[in-house]
Amino acid sequence: MKVTALAGGIGGARFLRGVKAALPEADVTVIGNTGDDIILHRLNISPDLDTVMYTLGGGISAERGWGREDETFTVAAELKEYGVGPDWFGLGDRDLATHLVRTQMLEAGYALSAVTAALCHRWQPGVRLIPMSDDRVETHVVIDDGQGRRAIHFQEWWLRLRAEVPAEAIVSVGAADAKPAPGVLDAIAEADVLLLPPSNPVVSIGSILSVPGIREAVGATAAPVVGVSPIIGGSAVRGMADACLRAIGVETSAEAVGRHYGSREGAHGAEGQGLLDGWLVDTADAGVTVPGVRVVARPLLMTDLDATVAIVRAALELAGV
Amino acid sequence: MKVTALAGGIGGARFLRGVKAALPEADVTVIGNTGDDIILHRLNISPDLDTVMYTLGGGISAERGWGREDETFTVAAELKEYGVGPDWFGLGDRDLATHLVRTQMLEAGYALSAVTAALCHRWQPGVRLIPMSDDRVETHVVIDDGQGRRAIHFQEWWLRLRAEVPAEAIVSVGAADAKPAPGVLDAIAEADVLLLPPSNPVVSIGSILSVPGIREAVGATAAPVVGVSPIIGGSAVRGMADACLRAIGVETSAEAVGRHYGSREGAHGAEGQGLLDGWLVDTADAGVTVPGVRVVARPLLMTDLDATVAIVRAALELAGV
Repeated sequence: MKVTALAGGIGGARFLRGVKAALPEADVTVIGNTGDDIILHRLNISPDLDTVMYTLGGGISAERGWGREDETFTVAAELKEYGVGPDWFGLGDRDLATHLVRTQMLEAGYALSAVTAALCHRWQPGVRLIPMSDDRVETHVVIDDGQGRRAIHFQEWWLRLRAEVPAEAIVSVGAADAKPAPGVLDAIAEADVLLLPPSNPVVSIGSILSVPGIREAVGATAAPVVGVSPIIGGSAVRGMADACLRAIGVETSAEAVGRHYGSREGAHGAEGQGLLDGWLVDTADAGVTVPGVRVVARPLLMTDLDATVAIVRAALELAGV
Repeated sequence: MKVTALAGGIGGARFLRGVKAALPEADVTVIGNTGDDIILHRLNISPDLDTVMYTLGGGISAERGWGREDETFTVAAELKEYGVGPDWFGLGDRDLATHLVRTQMLEAGYALSAVTAALCHRWQPGVRLIPMSDDRVETHVVIDDGQGRRAIHFQEWWLRLRAEVPAEAIVSVGAADAKPAPGVLDAIAEADVLLLPPSNPVVSIGSILSVPGIREAVGATAAPVVGVSPIIGGSAVRGMADACLRAIGVETSAEAVGRHYGSREGAHGAEGQGLLDGWLVDTADAGVTVPGVRVVARPLLMTDLDATVAIVRAALELAGV
C-alpha cells in the first residue's frame, strides 16, 4: 500500500511513527513542511524535516520531542559568550552537524530534496521524506508589539515571543513562486491513501498547501484523504496552534479546522479546493459536522505508540483502505 | 615601549605570553600568520590567529597547545557519522563557535582584521592582534606521493600526512596579490623593537613575509630586529619544521635558519632583503655565526613562563632595548 502524508514537526512525526508501526509493509512518502526553515549563523536549518527524520530514524530527544537525544549546547553557549545572537533558537551540537552538512550541500548546488535524501541515508527513517519544495519558502508573521507593525520570521514569533504577541497575518513568503519538489505531486496522485496528521493546520499543513499545485493535487487524487484533528475539546494538543488559527480567523475547534480544510467534493475549503473525505476527531468532539466530510470520533491523544497506532488504524478505516 | 612581533601558532603564542609577562606595560602588536587558514565545512578557520588569541586570552588547551580548554568534539563526531570529511582536522565544539562568528562576519563583508578585533573583544589577549593580510593567502604544499604530483593545502600535509611525504615546494597561494592588513606596516615601522619568535621559519614567519611589503618594512624599520631560533641542536623544538626547511633547501640548524633570514645590513637573506640584527640561539648552538648579525646563545626551551620570560629578556637585551 502506498501511503502519503503531509507533515509538520513533532505531532506529524509522532503520528508517522504510528503509521510505520501500523503498516510495516507500506510504502510511505512524507511531504515535509519547510516553511519553518530558517538560516541562523549561516546554517540552513530545516526543523520539521529534521524532526521527522530524527523521530523515525531513532535519533530524536524523547524528552523534548525535537532535536537530538543526548544533546549538548556547547556551540550555542560559546556564541552567547561572543554576544552573537539570536539565543532563542535551540541549536544543539549534534543537530548543528546536520545543519552543516545541509548547508554545505545546498551551497554546492544540491536541491533540498537531494540533501534530505542524503541525510536520510544515515538516519534510515523508513519513509521517503520529501520537502514540500526545493525553493525557499519562509513563514513570516505580521505583528505589532508596540515597536511598530512588522513581519518577523515564524521561528522568532514562535520561540522568542512564544506566540504571545497576536499574529495579524501569517504569510508564506516565496510560496507563490515555489514549485513542489520532485516527487511531491506524484506521491499525492499515486497514493492509496493520503493522510493529514494532527500537525498545525496553519503553519505546517497550511504552509505545505501554500505551494502552488499541491492543494490542487490533493483535490484531484483518486486516493481517499483523511485528516486527523490537532484540536481536542477546543484546544491544541501541543504547541500554540490557537494563536495561528486566530490569525487566519478560524476558531480553535475540531469542527472549525475541519470546515477550514473543507470537503473535497461539493463544499469547498476556506482557501479554494477542499481537502477532506474523512475527518477524525477526538471522542471529546463527537457530534462535530463538516459538510461533505465523513466525521468519526476516536481517542486522539498520542500518549504512546499503541495509542498512536490505534489512531492511524481509525484513520485508515475511515479512509476505507 | 612598542613591541611588534610576527607570530605563527603554538611556539609564537607561548613566546608572546613571555613578552607580556616580561613587559606588562608594553604596547604589543602581533602580526599573525594566516597562511594556515582553511575553509572546512564552509567555516573560515584561522588556526594561528586563534592559537594566539586563546593562549593570551586564557582559553587555550594547556595540554594540546591548540584549541580550547575543556573542549568537546561532538559536532566532528556527528559529521563523521554522516560520512562528511575531512576527519583529520581537530574541529572542537567550542572552537567551532569562533569559526561560525568569523565566517558570518566575513560573509557580511567585514575584513579579517576587523573580525579578529571583534573576536579579541571577548578574549582580551592584551595585545593588538592583526592578521598579516585581509586578503586570502593559503599555504599549499607540492607533493608526489605516488598518486601523482599535486599541491595540497598545508593543513592536509601537516595533519593528515604528518609532513611525512616530502614537500617538493611550499607555495604561498594568493600572496603575490595580497596587501598587508591595515596597521601591519605601521606596527613594523613604529616599533621600538621587532621580534621574530621561534615560529616555523617557512610556513609561519615565511608566510607572513610572503605578503609584498612586509619584508621591505622589516628591512626599513628603525627598530632593532631580533629573531629567536626555533631550532635547537639541529632539531625543531616542536612541530615538523625540518620537513618545511628541507622543502626550501635549508638545513635544520640554528645557523642555517639564521643565515636564511639573513642580515638587515650588508649580507642579505636568501629571499632578498635580510631580516635580522640579532639572532638568539640555544646554548647548544653556541658558536653559530651569521654574517652581519649579532648572535647570542641562551637556553631557549620554553619549559615554563619563567624560562620564556628569560628568553624574551635575552632577546630584548640583544636588541639593546
